[in-house]
Amino acid sequence: MVRAATGEKKTGRTRQTVESRRGQLIALGLAFFGTRAYDVVSIDDIAEAAGISKGLLYHYFPTKRDYYAAVLETAAEDLRLQTVIDPTLTSDVRLRTGLEAYLDFVKARGPAYVALMRGGIGSDPVIAVILDRVRGHFIDTILKDLPPHPRPRALRVLLRGWVGFVEETSLAWLESPPGTISRAQLVATASSVLVSLLGDMLT
Amino acid sequence: MVRAATGEKKTGRTRQTVESRRGQLIALGLAFFGTRAYDVVSIDDIAEAAGISKGLLYHYFPTKRDYYAAVLETAAEDLRLQTVIDPTLTSDVRLRTGLEAYLDFVKARGPAYVALMRGGIGSDPVIAVILDRVRGHFIDTILKDLPPHPRPRALRVLLRGWVGFVEETSLAWLESPPGTISRAQLVATASSVLVSLLGDMLT
Repeated sequence: MVRAATGEKKTGRTRQTVESRRGQLIALGLAFFGTRAYDVVSIDDIAEAAGISKGLLYHYFPTKRDYYAAVLETAAEDLRLQTVIDPTLTSDVRLRTGLEAYLDFVKARGPAYVALMRGGIGSDPVIAVILDRVRGHFIDTILKDLPPHPRPRALRVLLRGWVGFVEETSLAWLESPPGTISRAQLVATASSVLVSLLGDMLT
Repeated sequence: MVRAATGEKKTGRTRQTVESRRGQLIALGLAFFGTRAYDVVSIDDIAEAAGISKGLLYHYFPTKRDYYAAVLETAAEDLRLQTVIDPTLTSDVRLRTGLEAYLDFVKARGPAYVALMRGGIGSDPVIAVILDRVRGHFIDTILKDLPPHPRPRALRVLLRGWVGFVEETSLAWLESPPGTISRAQLVATASSVLVSLLGDMLT
């Protein structure tokens, strides 16, 4: 069992407390990193907002970079979990339902989504891998539905482009005034781009 | 005329020298920031690689953030200049030629392109604006060719998605082994995605 070394009373703490404290710190990080640059977010501000000592924060996350990575990992995992779709549905319905779930995540969890997408500290490979894994997950999900392809590596390049299309329209949608474009139109357009890409590649 | 305060002999320096020193530092920054995280690039390393004092580097760029911004601005401007296409060509040819020029930049200036795309320090608005301006420039260039549109804001959201498609396929192409996908296929696919997006929107 993990135990905090400083800053909290040692009596009566359970694993549950440790987990929920960690969750609280991550939630705080999602709000902070979604709206501020990495290097202007200070560990002091986070500790103060959480009402704990800086030492205790460092107990959970040894460095600021570790904390940042944990926050982005959580956003990535939340996004992945929210877009799990019943595999017994037809592929058309799964695509539409998956895109709807994705956009619902974007709307409901704006700062977390922005933190994940704009994450990274320059060309930081450690952080970049978190986002690359989510992208890879979506690409694999699409590929699983397709017949084996003679040039799968070329197809992956184009599918990564499609994921980029979805990400950038999502960010633009989040920033745009209400009424600019509907969720339904975004879903329809992203679906039709994917279908036309696959059509080009598979013929 | 700008004059360095420290670290160089004061005699015989001309504006040319100052400009070329600045250019040398920017070129160095493109290589550094394209391959390393922002917070592990140190001003000491840059000064050492340039063979100048840290004080002189700070004379040209008062903070590391200023230096980073200048480096990304240069990458953005180079990309914009390299994709200027003769306006008397037909819109089809301009699109194809523009995409070819874009991909040539990606291949020839890999680290600079990666620095620009992966730029930003978390959700840093000051840095994000540099990339947003390049994207806006490409979107405006496309919109200039189109008839006035009843819902231009929705169209901008989708065009931003298309730019995301081009950026992500470009990065994937750069990272992939030779022979994965050709420049010609990337150009053809990006063109056909754009034409189909505009077709959906304009009908």
